[in-house]
Amino acid sequence: MGDNIMRPAGRSAQQMRPLKLTRNYTKYAEGSVLVELGYTKVLCNATVEEGVPRFLRSHRQGWVNAEYGMLPRSTHIRITREASRGKQSGRTMEIQRLIARSLRAAVDLRKMGEFTITLDCDVIQADGGTRTASITGACVALADCLNYLVVRGKIKDNPMKCMVGAVSVGVVHGQVVCDLEYSEDSIAETDMNIVMMEDGRIIELQGTAEGDPFSQEQLIQLLAIARSSLKEIVQAQKAALEN
Amino acid sequence: MGDNIMRPAGRSAQQMRPLKLTRNYTKYAEGSVLVELGYTKVLCNATVEEGVPRFLRSHRQGWVNAEYGMLPRSTHIRITREASRGKQSGRTMEIQRLIARSLRAAVDLRKMGEFTITLDCDVIQADGGTRTASITGACVALADCLNYLVVRGKIKDNPMKCMVGAVSVGVVHGQVVCDLEYSEDSIAETDMNIVMMEDGRIIELQGTAEGDPFSQEQLIQLLAIARSSLKEIVQAQKAALEN
Amino acid sequence: MGDNIMRPAGRSAQQMRPLKLTRNYTKYAEGSVLVELGYTKVLCNATVEEGVPRFLRSHRQGWVNAEYGMLPRSTHIRITREASRGKQSGRTMEIQRLIARSLRAAVDLRKMGEFTITLDCDVIQADGGTRTASITGACVALADCLNYLVVRGKIKDNPMKCMVGAVSVGVVHGQVVCDLEYSEDSIAETDMNIVMMEDGRIIELQGTAEGDPFSQEQLIQLLAIARSSLKEIVQAQKAALEN
Amino acid sequence: MGDNIMRPAGRSAQQMRPLKLTRNYTKYAEGSVLVELGYTKVLCNATVEEGVPRFLRSHRQGWVNAEYGMLPRSTHIRITREASRGKQSGRTMEIQRLIARSLRAAVDLRKMGEFTITLDCDVIQADGGTRTASITGACVALADCLNYLVVRGKIKDNPMKCMVGAVSVGVVHGQVVCDLEYSEDSIAETDMNIVMMEDGRIIELQGTAEGDPFSQEQLIQLLAIARSSLKEIVQAQKAALEN
Amino acid sequence: MGDNIMRPAGRSAQQMRPLKLTRNYTKYAEGSVLVELGYTKVLCNATVEEGVPRFLRSHRQGWVNAEYGMLPRSTHIRITREASRGKQSGRTMEIQRLIARSLRAAVDLRKMGEFTITLDCDVIQADGGTRTASITGACVALADCLNYLVVRGKIKDNPMKCMVGAVSVGVVHGQVVCDLEYSEDSIAETDMNIVMMEDGRIIELQGTAEGDPFSQEQLIQLLAIARSSLKEIVQAQKAALEN
Amino acid sequence: MGDNIMRPAGRSAQQMRPLKLTRNYTKYAEGSVLVELGYTKVLCNATVEEGVPRFLRSHRQGWVNAEYGMLPRSTHIRITREASRGKQSGRTMEIQRLIARSLRAAVDLRKMGEFTITLDCDVIQADGGTRTASITGACVALADCLNYLVVRGKIKDNPMKCMVGAVSVGVVHGQVVCDLEYSEDSIAETDMNIVMMEDGRIIELQGTAEGDPFSQEQLIQLLAIARSSLKEIVQAQKAALEN
Repeated sequence: MGDNIMRPAGRSAQQMRPLKLTRNYTKYAEGSVLVELGYTKVLCNATVEEGVPRFLRSHRQGWVNAEYGMLPRSTHIRITREASRGKQSGRTMEIQRLIARSLRAAVDLRKMGEFTITLDCDVIQADGGTRTASITGACVALADCLNYLVVRGKIKDNPMKCMVGAVSVGVVHGQVVCDLEYSEDSIAETDMNIVMMEDGRIIELQGTAEGDPFSQEQLIQLLAIARSSLKEIVQAQKAALEN
Repeated sequence: MGDNIMRPAGRSAQQMRPLKLTRNYTKYAEGSVLVELGYTKVLCNATVEEGVPRFLRSHRQGWVNAEYGMLPRSTHIRITREASRGKQSGRTMEIQRLIARSLRAAVDLRKMGEFTITLDCDVIQADGGTRTASITGACVALADCLNYLVVRGKIKDNPMKCMVGAVSVGVVHGQVVCDLEYSEDSIAETDMNIVMMEDGRIIELQGTAEGDPFSQEQLIQLLAIARSSLKEIVQAQKAALEN
Repeated sequence: MGDNIMRPAGRSAQQMRPLKLTRNYTKYAEGSVLVELGYTKVLCNATVEEGVPRFLRSHRQGWVNAEYGMLPRSTHIRITREASRGKQSGRTMEIQRLIARSLRAAVDLRKMGEFTITLDCDVIQADGGTRTASITGACVALADCLNYLVVRGKIKDNPMKCMVGAVSVGVVHGQVVCDLEYSEDSIAETDMNIVMMEDGRIIELQGTAEGDPFSQEQLIQLLAIARSSLKEIVQAQKAALEN
Repeated sequence: MGDNIMRPAGRSAQQMRPLKLTRNYTKYAEGSVLVELGYTKVLCNATVEEGVPRFLRSHRQGWVNAEYGMLPRSTHIRITREASRGKQSGRTMEIQRLIARSLRAAVDLRKMGEFTITLDCDVIQADGGTRTASITGACVALADCLNYLVVRGKIKDNPMKCMVGAVSVGVVHGQVVCDLEYSEDSIAETDMNIVMMEDGRIIELQGTAEGDPFSQEQLIQLLAIARSSLKEIVQAQKAALEN
Repeated sequence: MGDNIMRPAGRSAQQMRPLKLTRNYTKYAEGSVLVELGYTKVLCNATVEEGVPRFLRSHRQGWVNAEYGMLPRSTHIRITREASRGKQSGRTMEIQRLIARSLRAAVDLRKMGEFTITLDCDVIQADGGTRTASITGACVALADCLNYLVVRGKIKDNPMKCMVGAVSVGVVHGQVVCDLEYSEDSIAETDMNIVMMEDGRIIELQGTAEGDPFSQEQLIQLLAIARSSLKEIVQAQKAALEN
Repeated sequence: MGDNIMRPAGRSAQQMRPLKLTRNYTKYAEGSVLVELGYTKVLCNATVEEGVPRFLRSHRQGWVNAEYGMLPRSTHIRITREASRGKQSGRTMEIQRLIARSLRAAVDLRKMGEFTITLDCDVIQADGGTRTASITGACVALADCLNYLVVRGKIKDNPMKCMVGAVSVGVVHGQVVCDLEYSEDSIAETDMNIVMMEDGRIIELQGTAEGDPFSQEQLIQLLAIARSSLKEIVQAQKAALEN
């Protein structure tokens, strides 16, 4: 495992791309965060609406949902607009389900009141890691949105349990690295998305051996590098929320 | 017709909102312009692809197409994502047809080679005038995209005939005003979108009497105010392209 | 502007094709009008239903809606049936929105009671001007339908404000002409659909420069010729209603 | 089985409604027939196109297809437009498959050349028997369309084998009757659609016991009454073609 | 009509393939029957739900519905999965409507209470006769499902009027045969599906002359052979229910 | 972590449900396996077709695809048929993508020739673990299908690299258990699907903390229990293939 292999832009294996979180990016949403991770840019808007989906009626709890989309030219080659094609791809559905599950883990839904918060994660520019950046940014938008409800007296206590961040890690040329950009992602032997709580416990783990299968040893290295990135991510989330 | 009625933000009847055109807003598109008109923000990306639609095969010409979308929370109240609903609304289709027709008027398609340029206009934030802002911004993105083709030797001469700009005008409380923002748009007696060439000739004219019908006299006033706004718009387009 | 250029069928520039309005064309609809404009034939059926769309509940008003369709072989070349293709084209949506807006302008919705009237405009044979003929015919069907409600005591006073007619005008070979048939429409430099009230005030104005842009001078000529046609149209509508 | 029960409009059990076939009803289709059966009115347009569906390529034969639709207000109560609902109903699909199979039986496809003829049957007004009227009318439109090909030298000999007609028969109040109108159809114990060749042999037989099951004896009575109606129908078809 | 022509597997003209009905095939459905007819295998599951479709509200009766599907590789050549194609074929719709109508004839809906029973007929392996096998199997599943309601006291008396069975018959090489397998079905001159009550009366009759039209004489032979098969079918249904 | 908590049916934490693999379950598919895992039953059919998807043309390799579906009444409560709803759910898409990726890892696509193998996994009865059972069964069907190609001389050497098996593991009441059945799955704190090669290396890892997040320590326990189950699974796959 060659630590000396050069990554794009000269990053070291455990070095994330610059992460920037801009709150109040648009003016209507109850939480609006532009997350930038290197060249990857995702706009995460939180919308709160009264009521919950049908299957939760009379459960006296709230709900958190997510939708994900890519602008047609957020990528090197233009992708067909899902709205004109008439359906969302399997990849899109998979990602928005992941984002929603991850953020529900951050909230005590029973203390949230009968509100539904929808997190729209729209990719402006994609250079790898859009789903993990979406989770990281949406968590801040969610915090703002919940605070909006508290400030207006709609819910008593903030039901946010903790920050939730996500990072992609992988094995590239046999080397365990964090925060893969597109040029790495497309050649990675293993590609793994990890969603963690502040304390390092795992919410979601999705690893795929695109090339060679991976061993338990490699998995533990991947988790270690993810845990270290997560610290930076949570720090950035908290710093953004304090501004 | 009371010129002394106060418009939002203290604008005069013939005063446009600040217009800002940012080129190269994203890095993959062959033309990428963020257009801001007051709080309205639209990202206009131009993509060039080889070949033309089937109905133009063997016509030895190019084609310009457009797609339009609104991010779900670009508006006060979240709108359903068209991709998840499985179809585009009539309004969306109407707008993207308007954008495409307007921009085809700016280009000599016969000198463009067998390329198709698609203009994706995605509304980040909507405060009235998204379709006209889209045309104004997309025209600059189209210019960049055509220049990209010329620079790479794909086409010999730039087939752009002139700048094309668009503005919304209307009758609000009996007063003819230009560049309506959302709070004006929603109460306007007449709402009109005008697309013009640099020289003031008209490409598209779409006027709707939402409240009272309008007279020919009012139409001429509306055209006059549009023509004056158009001068500013073309100036801004040219200034942006010179940077 | 060459007035001496021959139009198809020897019409003069300001001469409309023969217009025929046949009421009670089918027997179930509350208003049923076949409109024939030269070879263009559109069946306009008005249906009244109790209740209004969700967004109007508790507004104590009525609503007027429209749908438009072309029979697959109403045209020279068979077009795909939209029902089998699974969606309506952008053109269809654009037209039915135009028809609906135009007819809503003819009615005082607040005096209409909580009824929804749907105008189905189905093109039996198309030779240019189907959308304007639809509006002209649907207005008569709407009048019959409102009268049906008055006669049955469902509403007290007839809420129809005035007749609304529509005509297409354009610039063909540099000449301003009215009521374009298909062979003219397909080569027109400018194509404009105008919807007017009886008194000549404008409800909708949709002009497109397919070839060359048009000047304000031409616009005024187009309006003049439209206004003159409108007189004939309203006369025909009134004559039909008096039979 | 009471022959003395009065049918609507005083018809006898074996009496069809007046049948009228108007050829060249629209001007573009290669065959265009308006069929009127009492109040039921269906426009049957035949379109010929070069080529055959993929599954027939290199089979050196032709194909006959059919599509069926009802105008939204062809019925007592407005039905949703299938184009706007985004799909055709099971009933629609069932009917258009029946029409197509029936008409393919009228033609020697191997002598037809590689052409596809599509029969569009659009119901203008429905009062029972729309599917059988469609077959009866479409057969005449098909004959015109095949003749069009022969006259233009596209095919040598007319591949039409014979006329094909269809009639609905049924058991109403225990009485076997032919050509049910809507008020009978909706209460019939048995409803049967029969498609026959000129010589009385059967192409399609679709019988449904909506209320009570039917016996073989009743079936034979139903066939007898159908056969007698068919004679009238074929006579009318031939008379129409001779004009 | 050559009775001496050999059928596949040496069957005689009036000999059905072995019929096997396995009850309780899956464990959740209120009625679950695997029907095997030679190589044709269909799983028929009955589901009971409270309430009835909207159009029956306040009619104080029950409803029976059916859905039909083929597993993609139930056939020689894989067929596209309808779920991924986004719509059901016309054939599927036609079949599920036939199954539903046939089974509604077996039940006194007015004595069934406000329940809806859905019969899902899913073809595991297809070798001809899947729609008739579905009806035969679904009838047993329906009986189990109704019994389930009686046993639990949800309805007082079993509303089943009688067994309903179905068989396909046809003319192959001029010979009238019953229970066509795929290799016969694909070359049959006439193909007929007959649904009968125990007493031989007919519920549904759908005959199609794929090749040559058929005469009344042939129809009577087809009915005779169907009636004889039906006796075996009902016997098998009753035997299965007695186990 | 209480090893003494009783699991349903008295299973121990590391005890799988009985696994049964039946080959040649249907007669048309090139590989057809019914996999039964306790009450969970999935039919896995492999279909081979010539050619590859468009994006692989001229790559001189093969492709493996998968589709997944649940029969409507494979579950306690009937689920809507995706074919009639008109689209596949996000869950379905996610699962079929997982199955396909997992099985592609079992094959050297470059040695497979330009064939596409589609694995249809249709759930007959669901009691938890349908996606992992699908992978386990589909791997055997894939082996049969590849052998079919080798035997017919379509490909020279069998491109199967090794068996691939899958198992679900989880944390239930704080205890790490393998092969969750539905009653456990629905209350699990953590639910993890693991796809492994014969040698224990990981192909896919998808862990979700439905309730509490999980620690690295728990993850290692989950992997251990999965690895032990995998041995049994591969043994069963090999035994099935040897019969």
